[in-house]
Amino acid sequence: MTTEEYYGGIEGGATHSKMVLMKSDGSIVAWADGPATNQWAPTHCIDECLKRINDLAVEIKKKAGTDENIPLKGLGMSMSGGDSAECQAKMTKAIQEKYKTLSESFNVCNDTYGALATATDKGGIVLIAGTGSNCQLINPDGGRSRVGGWGHLIGDEGSAFWIVHRALKILFDHEDNLFPCQYDVTFVRKTMCEHFNVQDQFGMLDHLYTNFTKSFYASMAVKLAKGASELNDPLCKHIFEETGKILALHVQAVSQHADESLLKGPGGLSVVCVGSVWKSWDLMKEGFFKALKPRNDQDVKITEISLLELQQNGAVGAAALGAKHAGYQLPLDYKANSKTFCHHKFD
Amino acid sequence: MTTEEYYGGIEGGATHSKMVLMKSDGSIVAWADGPATNQWAPTHCIDECLKRINDLAVEIKKKAGTDENIPLKGLGMSMSGGDSAECQAKMTKAIQEKYKTLSESFNVCNDTYGALATATDKGGIVLIAGTGSNCQLINPDGGRSRVGGWGHLIGDEGSAFWIVHRALKILFDHEDNLFPCQYDVTFVRKTMCEHFNVQDQFGMLDHLYTNFTKSFYASMAVKLAKGASELNDPLCKHIFEETGKILALHVQAVSQHADESLLKGPGGLSVVCVGSVWKSWDLMKEGFFKALKPRNDQDVKITEISLLELQQNGAVGAAALGAKHAGYQLPLDYKANSKTFCHHKFD
Repeated sequence: MTTEEYYGGIEGGATHSKMVLMKSDGSIVAWADGPATNQWAPTHCIDECLKRINDLAVEIKKKAGTDENIPLKGLGMSMSGGDSAECQAKMTKAIQEKYKTLSESFNVCNDTYGALATATDKGGIVLIAGTGSNCQLINPDGGRSRVGGWGHLIGDEGSAFWIVHRALKILFDHEDNLFPCQYDVTFVRKTMCEHFNVQDQFGMLDHLYTNFTKSFYASMAVKLAKGASELNDPLCKHIFEETGKILALHVQAVSQHADESLLKGPGGLSVVCVGSVWKSWDLMKEGFFKALKPRNDQDVKITEISLLELQQNGAVGAAALGAKHAGYQLPLDYKANSKTFCHHKFD
Repeated sequence: MTTEEYYGGIEGGATHSKMVLMKSDGSIVAWADGPATNQWAPTHCIDECLKRINDLAVEIKKKAGTDENIPLKGLGMSMSGGDSAECQAKMTKAIQEKYKTLSESFNVCNDTYGALATATDKGGIVLIAGTGSNCQLINPDGGRSRVGGWGHLIGDEGSAFWIVHRALKILFDHEDNLFPCQYDVTFVRKTMCEHFNVQDQFGMLDHLYTNFTKSFYASMAVKLAKGASELNDPLCKHIFEETGKILALHVQAVSQHADESLLKGPGGLSVVCVGSVWKSWDLMKEGFFKALKPRNDQDVKITEISLLELQQNGAVGAAALGAKHAGYQLPLDYKANSKTFCHHKFD
């Protein structure tokens, strides 16, 4: 037994989850990986989601060689789908009641918060484009504004799901002659058939409805990115340019509420970019900068922007938020936790 | 026991199903109603779907006072989602093996076939816009072509689901400032909150994911139609005009494959319009005629069109197709089975 105080952070995604265990000096003690912990996923309810979180914590305490019956001082949960105050309160109450040795204090937020808190404690914008998507602005005074993040049926623009869905929708509409496509659809058709192991569109019905798995569906985006970058496929290139545009619109939309200090800071507006879609930045940047401009009188003019990628998992920021909630300022090395991959000044 | 020969027809939808029992002289003996029999619905598998069909047949034989152990001569099943040859063969094999006293012969087709066979045996176009949507051309020689009908995730354009989804998507994008809407969204917001009994967009996540029910979701379209027709709400009117446009594109797309005799017949191209969305024709017709024109060199010019509504349930056509499959021509009164609700000549 030790008098050391531990803090935990979880980044809970729609595909997988990651937990970090940290000491009060900010050092990382252990990591643990687990399955999806998005409470809105059809495959598991909130109870299953909380069980998965506890399983992660039990595993990480074991890894670290700490007593699993001694609660953490604080646990931050940065969850995909953990958006509303109501849902956060419900999760906190349920986990406190059910898993008494897990942690003394809990903080639930959506996954954009953990990502931003990993890069800075000064506020900024996070733009997640992974399996799903979400954009969050947090001002230095704590004020916040959100765009997107509503899931695949009504949102998730610019996510891997959305990229695949755009490609398939363009293919379906072209095959139907509903909206003939100006680009050759051969590569997208072939990629769909291979990825889902189907002969044609009819074979897709099973993957779209009865056995829909968002993460598998979205994983076809990697192949479309290859089609664009390695084969120069015009339709794939077009889709990634559209992805850049719609992601820029998220930044433009949320910037309306940004504090002047965020817009005019060193390097301009900082956007923490999270998720595998950003690996295709080269395919998206032209569309991104084309779309990043005021659309009406309410929109701000962004004159300078820095896009950052995390060098550390968002679970670390979640741990910092969990600690903050427990009344402790966990010292993070923000400079090391992120780096700028694109800096742009507009004329 | 009787020597009378009976034929059955089922119209199986994503919301409910209807069965008709007919004598070989074409007269109707009985009707029966049942739940959804769409095999792609997440709430029931193909086995449950076949059980529901057999339940309908048992009930209708009882109603008609016929021996339930004497098979029908033929059963036609015109099913929402019964599209591919593979799925039709699978359903036929399974129902034959499992329900031996149901019918001597089975014919499965998608729900557009039953509707068209109710109105004519000469071929034509069917355009379904109910909970979902689908458009099918059947030429006099049996050749066919289809547009849409892929379900709510990747198709269903112009359906009640799509109308509601357009309205909510416009609302969400406006509230997010992702795509500011030029129309006032107040009525749509209010209607969403009332229909789904939610306070805001966050409340919708449950209805969009965990407890998504397509038919309930789509049923909000009735309220949007009222908003357009009774309150003159500009956003609702806009959405129904868009609905007219996208439905016209289905007709335009499928007409590319139409036999000359269908395009140039009396009254021009006949389109059998099925589903509750057509009740809002007055709200859609301007958009419909605006969009019904050649878009490229491949598209045909439609010079005259008649839109028909069925006066009889599509189960009757399904029975005729079931009889045809069993080698018998069931006499139907086609003139009485449909009527023209709109006739239009283009300049």
